Amino acid sequence: MHNPLNISNGRLKRLFISGSAKKDVPPGTMVYTGEQTAEPLRITSLDYAADTIAEENDDSVESCALLKGSGSVSWINITGLNDTAVIGKIGSVFGIHPLVLEDILHTAQRPKLEDMGDYLFLVVRMLFVEPENGGIHSEQISFILTEDCLISFQERAGDVFDAVRDRLRKGHGRIRKMGADYLLYALMDAIVDNYFMILEKTGEQIEDIEEALMENPNSLLLNELYAQKRELLYIRKAIWPLREAVSGLERGESGLLSAKVGAYLRDLYDHTIQVIDTVETFRDMLSGVQDLYLSSMGQKTNQVMQVLTIIATIFIPLTFVAGIYGMNFEHMPELGWKYSYPVFWIVMVLITTAMLFYFRRKKWF
Amino acid sequence: MHNPLNISNGRLKRLFISGSAKKDVPPGTMVYTGEQTAEPLRITSLDYAADTIAEENDDSVESCALLKGSGSVSWINITGLNDTAVIGKIGSVFGIHPLVLEDILHTAQRPKLEDMGDYLFLVVRMLFVEPENGGIHSEQISFILTEDCLISFQERAGDVFDAVRDRLRKGHGRIRKMGADYLLYALMDAIVDNYFMILEKTGEQIEDIEEALMENPNSLLLNELYAQKRELLYIRKAIWPLREAVSGLERGESGLLSAKVGAYLRDLYDHTIQVIDTVETFRDMLSGVQDLYLSSMGQKTNQVMQVLTIIATIFIPLTFVAGIYGMNFEHMPELGWKYSYPVFWIVMVLITTAMLFYFRRKKWF
Amino acid sequence: MHNPLNISNGRLKRLFISGSAKKDVPPGTMVYTGEQTAEPLRITSLDYAADTIAEENDDSVESCALLKGSGSVSWINITGLNDTAVIGKIGSVFGIHPLVLEDILHTAQRPKLEDMGDYLFLVVRMLFVEPENGGIHSEQISFILTEDCLISFQERAGDVFDAVRDRLRKGHGRIRKMGADYLLYALMDAIVDNYFMILEKTGEQIEDIEEALMENPNSLLLNELYAQKRELLYIRKAIWPLREAVSGLERGESGLLSAKVGAYLRDLYDHTIQVIDTVETFRDMLSGVQDLYLSSMGQKTNQVMQVLTIIATIFIPLTFVAGIYGMNFEHMPELGWKYSYPVFWIVMVLITTAMLFYFRRKKWF
Amino acid sequence: MHNPLNISNGRLKRLFISGSAKKDVPPGTMVYTGEQTAEPLRITSLDYAADTIAEENDDSVESCALLKGSGSVSWINITGLNDTAVIGKIGSVFGIHPLVLEDILHTAQRPKLEDMGDYLFLVVRMLFVEPENGGIHSEQISFILTEDCLISFQERAGDVFDAVRDRLRKGHGRIRKMGADYLLYALMDAIVDNYFMILEKTGEQIEDIEEALMENPNSLLLNELYAQKRELLYIRKAIWPLREAVSGLERGESGLLSAKVGAYLRDLYDHTIQVIDTVETFRDMLSGVQDLYLSSMGQKTNQVMQVLTIIATIFIPLTFVAGIYGMNFEHMPELGWKYSYPVFWIVMVLITTAMLFYFRRKKWF
Amino acid sequence: MHNPLNISNGRLKRLFISGSAKKDVPPGTMVYTGEQTAEPLRITSLDYAADTIAEENDDSVESCALLKGSGSVSWINITGLNDTAVIGKIGSVFGIHPLVLEDILHTAQRPKLEDMGDYLFLVVRMLFVEPENGGIHSEQISFILTEDCLISFQERAGDVFDAVRDRLRKGHGRIRKMGADYLLYALMDAIVDNYFMILEKTGEQIEDIEEALMENPNSLLLNELYAQKRELLYIRKAIWPLREAVSGLERGESGLLSAKVGAYLRDLYDHTIQVIDTVETFRDMLSGVQDLYLSSMGQKTNQVMQVLTIIATIFIPLTFVAGIYGMNFEHMPELGWKYSYPVFWIVMVLITTAMLFYFRRKKWF
Repeated sequence: MHNPLNISNGRLKRLFISGSAKKDVPPGTMVYTGEQTAEPLRITSLDYAADTIAEENDDSVESCALLKGSGSVSWINITGLNDTAVIGKIGSVFGIHPLVLEDILHTAQRPKLEDMGDYLFLVVRMLFVEPENGGIHSEQISFILTEDCLISFQERAGDVFDAVRDRLRKGHGRIRKMGADYLLYALMDAIVDNYFMILEKTGEQIEDIEEALMENPNSLLLNELYAQKRELLYIRKAIWPLREAVSGLERGESGLLSAKVGAYLRDLYDHTIQVIDTVETFRDMLSGVQDLYLSSMGQKTNQVMQVLTIIATIFIPLTFVAGIYGMNFEHMPELGWKYSYPVFWIVMVLITTAMLFYFRRKKWF
Repeated sequence: MHNPLNISNGRLKRLFISGSAKKDVPPGTMVYTGEQTAEPLRITSLDYAADTIAEENDDSVESCALLKGSGSVSWINITGLNDTAVIGKIGSVFGIHPLVLEDILHTAQRPKLEDMGDYLFLVVRMLFVEPENGGIHSEQISFILTEDCLISFQERAGDVFDAVRDRLRKGHGRIRKMGADYLLYALMDAIVDNYFMILEKTGEQIEDIEEALMENPNSLLLNELYAQKRELLYIRKAIWPLREAVSGLERGESGLLSAKVGAYLRDLYDHTIQVIDTVETFRDMLSGVQDLYLSSMGQKTNQVMQVLTIIATIFIPLTFVAGIYGMNFEHMPELGWKYSYPVFWIVMVLITTAMLFYFRRKKWF
Repeated sequence: MHNPLNISNGRLKRLFISGSAKKDVPPGTMVYTGEQTAEPLRITSLDYAADTIAEENDDSVESCALLKGSGSVSWINITGLNDTAVIGKIGSVFGIHPLVLEDILHTAQRPKLEDMGDYLFLVVRMLFVEPENGGIHSEQISFILTEDCLISFQERAGDVFDAVRDRLRKGHGRIRKMGADYLLYALMDAIVDNYFMILEKTGEQIEDIEEALMENPNSLLLNELYAQKRELLYIRKAIWPLREAVSGLERGESGLLSAKVGAYLRDLYDHTIQVIDTVETFRDMLSGVQDLYLSSMGQKTNQVMQVLTIIATIFIPLTFVAGIYGMNFEHMPELGWKYSYPVFWIVMVLITTAMLFYFRRKKWF
Repeated sequence: MHNPLNISNGRLKRLFISGSAKKDVPPGTMVYTGEQTAEPLRITSLDYAADTIAEENDDSVESCALLKGSGSVSWINITGLNDTAVIGKIGSVFGIHPLVLEDILHTAQRPKLEDMGDYLFLVVRMLFVEPENGGIHSEQISFILTEDCLISFQERAGDVFDAVRDRLRKGHGRIRKMGADYLLYALMDAIVDNYFMILEKTGEQIEDIEEALMENPNSLLLNELYAQKRELLYIRKAIWPLREAVSGLERGESGLLSAKVGAYLRDLYDHTIQVIDTVETFRDMLSGVQDLYLSSMGQKTNQVMQVLTIIATIFIPLTFVAGIYGMNFEHMPELGWKYSYPVFWIVMVLITTAMLFYFRRKKWF
Repeated sequence: MHNPLNISNGRLKRLFISGSAKKDVPPGTMVYTGEQTAEPLRITSLDYAADTIAEENDDSVESCALLKGSGSVSWINITGLNDTAVIGKIGSVFGIHPLVLEDILHTAQRPKLEDMGDYLFLVVRMLFVEPENGGIHSEQISFILTEDCLISFQERAGDVFDAVRDRLRKGHGRIRKMGADYLLYALMDAIVDNYFMILEKTGEQIEDIEEALMENPNSLLLNELYAQKRELLYIRKAIWPLREAVSGLERGESGLLSAKVGAYLRDLYDHTIQVIDTVETFRDMLSGVQDLYLSSMGQKTNQVMQVLTIIATIFIPLTFVAGIYGMNFEHMPELGWKYSYPVFWIVMVLITTAMLFYFRRKKWF
């Protein structure tokens, strides 16, 4: 099977299901349940104001703590989640609830937004096309938004935020002039944009399948079709709850989201809805393609049957007649007649013509 | 495949998906993502009151700025969106939010209404049958409604508004006596009416398919059917969010919509609902037609099979019997008997009759 | 195809679609878009109180105007809508909004209720079995309910109100003692009752199809089934919005509906819901019948295949063996043996028995 | 067709449709529209308090009138509805609205609850397995609940209330200590319990079909399956509106329902929901069974085809070869060769082996 | 059929249906309707505070009564429900409503939460993989939560709470420091986690089916598929109402649930939603797998048909020609010609080549 998610079956299972790995440990216990267990934990921080920016690629929890309440906006990005001790330290520095930390590590969360009063907790699924092999990478990304600080947790290095980092470094657009809430918006926007990238690819593949189908339906297409369906199922499972989460952001009930960011969040919400619309439309298209496939197959079977039937119904009776005159009875008057053979041929031609006429009228060819 | 949307596959993709072209640029950046990149930007304006009308076909942003607050109602129509500088100028003259400008240029928007306080922003999809070739043209059209001014943005020249322009010029009906909100209604009404025109065409095609199907089901119909399904999917994707947008207009919460226009907007809303009803009914009809197709095919296969089976089951045993008496064994008493041959024929006729009787009882013919 | 709606395809199209005929005329312009363009406009009026009744069969707009505010209840019924001048006059006498008049003439409205303050406007679809030919007649009927007057607009003469007229004339029941609101209820009740009549007919036809299917599935049934499906689609399109309209009446927010009529309107609403329930149940039944049809066809194909296979697999090998001993090789020892022929028969019988045993075990017959 | 509802087709029609019989009579006119027109009207009454009970099996309207306001709780049960005069008298004694009386007689009501102020009106459908023949009996039962009196109307004698009557007579449980509202609950509970009885039977039949299907799919099963589907459709049509009615009771907005009965009504509501859940689950199971049936049929066809194809493709070429050496050409060198015949056999065996090998690789057997 | 629920058909019936066993007994009567009628009733109690814990494995109702209001938190667990006398005693000690006791014993309840003022009543279904045989065990578990006491009722010994008991005994995590409400959460969390365990197993089986299907579709897979579908149906029936119940807990309207437990209950709710999402996704996947199966079967039939048709259409005409020259007519000039036989072979080869060419163009092989 073509595997568009570029993941082993075992991993797919884990993507669809969660909760079991933490079994038999008390709620709120931190256990990383993801795959990237060899990924070293690394902290990078970006501290910026309208006209300054400081970047630190190998930061420590201690120096991150100093960013708190510094007046400037800070983005602390953590990649690699298997060092639960360090993450616990971050949790206690920023006052994060143990259940939230558990959710961060427990990487098969349903996307959700939780307003914890002092901070917002947002979990989403980041999907992007891996540049090396064209497969789709899927990981959980969690955000903690405080007054002046955004902490993001990724399962491994490599994300869709390079353009945002660039804008931050170069001071393009309004990003450096806005707060941490705008930064959250910008990152979410990048994530949702990547859903579009994947759907664009999916759309192309659906059209390829369609075109191939028009030419010659075969079983490889069937597996392709099934793989696309499954991929859409997966994206759908990630995007529907995302809608709720973004809608929660957009309603802007938290004091952590300024009014100025409202218009942007509404825009983000529109994009999320558009992703959902597109996923649903693609699902409809795929089921249309499948119907087309089945009908085409049915038609092909029909055509094959018609050829068989035409040939068989013409020649089987003829063969019978020939068989009759191949019999060795001593008393068969026709055998001795002079014009038997030409008469035989004439009868054969007449039968064939009559049958062809009948099939033509039935529109079988 | 028959292509009712008259668009290349590449373009279809873009119709269904948006968002990717603007990737890696900051939100609020103006980039035109549509197809009509060679279309020159042209501004036409219509400035009218109950008894005067001034029309300008090649207007400039500067003279448009003078129409603001002139007391009369102005309709500024911009065709061709790839000159982002000019559109940016219009934006700053009329005080349009950068995200709104981005949405105007980013031509795969989901239809929506946004109340920006000073102005309403409405994006819809205009579909019409191209008079030259009968294909369906689809483009995004955006409206900015201020106190006394309506600005419309089209991707290319050519629209469904000629009747409205005529009424404006000739002063027919109440249009010249009403404000910019009524003008918005009149234009929206023209757009929704064109959905009806397209659905009328679709309805005719569905009935053609139906009739052709009754006569002779074949694979061309299948592709037609699939194409119609896809077209309805496309219209549906455009009309469902339009419903919400028009419903927003109808609720009339904005001070920019006068009470007098309320009844008209309710009428517009009714029409939108009717378009949705019709699309859904057509989808139901198409799936009915498809079921009919599949059943007809199944029945045809069945019929073919029955013919084959009748012929084969009658003649195969007969041929076997003939084969027996074609054997060259030295000791076959029947061969020498005098009435073997006539008896053979009688047996043949009896077997055939019995079988025909059996098939008749089974209602195979 | 059996055409249960008794309408030409062209007309069906118009039933499903509306809005196009009025294209390129200003909103609020009165153009009759229906079919009955030759139907002469005729006004009949019934003016009644508890103990008097006056009937006028060829009334004029002028004398109708006198009925306004006369203290008695008046029912003004207009048949034939193509004389827009007269209808315009009625509109101005009773103060009807131009958009309402447009909706009355524009006869493919979605059923709806509009509270216009001074009067209620109700549009519904009247369906009834035409007594002459058993076909289903479908037309739009509009009601204007004022304080003491009910105006109804029909496309052509002939309706379902004769029983109501009778009760009015004879003073049966409470109808003469109640107001115009009760009259509206009585007429609506007659309309909804006729939906039941049509569904009863549909139910009978579904059961006929079912029974015929049990005996012998064939392609005529398929077309019948499809026609029934389409008819239900049509009734459904008329009844779902009717539900909303009747629900609007039942909530009784308008001062034009007295509390006394409330219980009757609730009853009407219950009937409407029951029509919807029945339509949905019939749709479910039809799709059940269709599944049954498809399964029966599949089974029939299977049965045919089994007969073919049994006959062919038994006789094809036998024929081969007979063919062998029909060969003319000079050196075939079996040909000269004395018991070759009886042995040949014994082998044939053994092969046949074995095969029949095999097919029996496979439950093929 | 197996007829699980034990009703003639004509009756089924009436079960699904109502409203027509009363056509052309004024609303509020009492006409019995059911089937049991020969059933004599009989009134039985049970008048009880905590420690007394009086039972009257052939009561008159007059003595029933005396039970009103007697301080004790009365249950008046009327069987047989075709004597409209008596029912009208009951109506006037207990002050029942004419439309309610019409609904009681008009026995194809949608289950509903109506709060008429002085009394509650509840219509439901009573389904039970007829002890004589195992068929399902379906009739409408109406309840009028006043302060201290419950009147029930049944179409014919025979119901599911014997256990309740027993408890009343013997004073078991709390029933004699509670009011008429508790009695209504107890009767409704008996009715809903009988839905479970029917569903239990349905469940057993579905499992029988399933098991039979696993062994040998055939067309009888198909009709069974269809009959079960239709029965569920019927129960569903009765139970969904019942849910609303019971929910109305449970919300307990009427002063006629005491707080003490609240917990019992909540329990009743839970049971109703459970009936709905079970019906929906059974529908899902049936459609699963149907899919299984279709797939099994498809597979059986496939298997049959494979046997045919294996036999035919092996023997048809062999027969051709045998046919060649049965030709009577004078110049066929092979005919005279000494080892032709054994070589022929070797070739035959080789061809057969090759083909079997090919089919094996294709996994055809 | 593979039976993933490890239950006899009879038991399955009872799982899906309830209510009948208690028929003809007054509401509120205690009758155990489950299967484990031989299971002896056993009471175990755990009484704990932050630093103490007392465990009693064979407790009596009397000593349980002493735990009430003791200041410490108590968990009373009852296994085996057929001794209704003891359960009645517990009911009267803790003041439990008779209808609640009935629901506890009536073990086919729909999961639900009821706030009874003094205590909360929660019924859920506990599913877990039986360690001995890998089958799924399903039983009803009921909770009574009072101020400082949690009473749980199980049908038989053996549950999913061992990890919770361990944490209680060892004082791990915060469980000993929290109240009875947290204990309820911990037990519910264990139950929901076991749903994940089962779904994980289901997911693996779906993937196994998928893989097997890709290799060779056969009828065993079909039954597997059907069994999985049915299992999901069952889990779904248990989990959907659970969602409502947990949502009721999470809204925390009862004073018995402290604010501190709120975050945990929200987490529990998230997990429940995730179970639902997964069940729905699995259902979609299964129907995808089924479509794939059907298409594969269709394709296989097609392939088989093509082989048959190719062989038959090539050899049937050839056999006819051979049959002609096997006829014994005295006057057949070709028989005596010298090159008849080689010409015959050449014609045969030409016909075969032409046909193969035709089939190749039709893409049949």
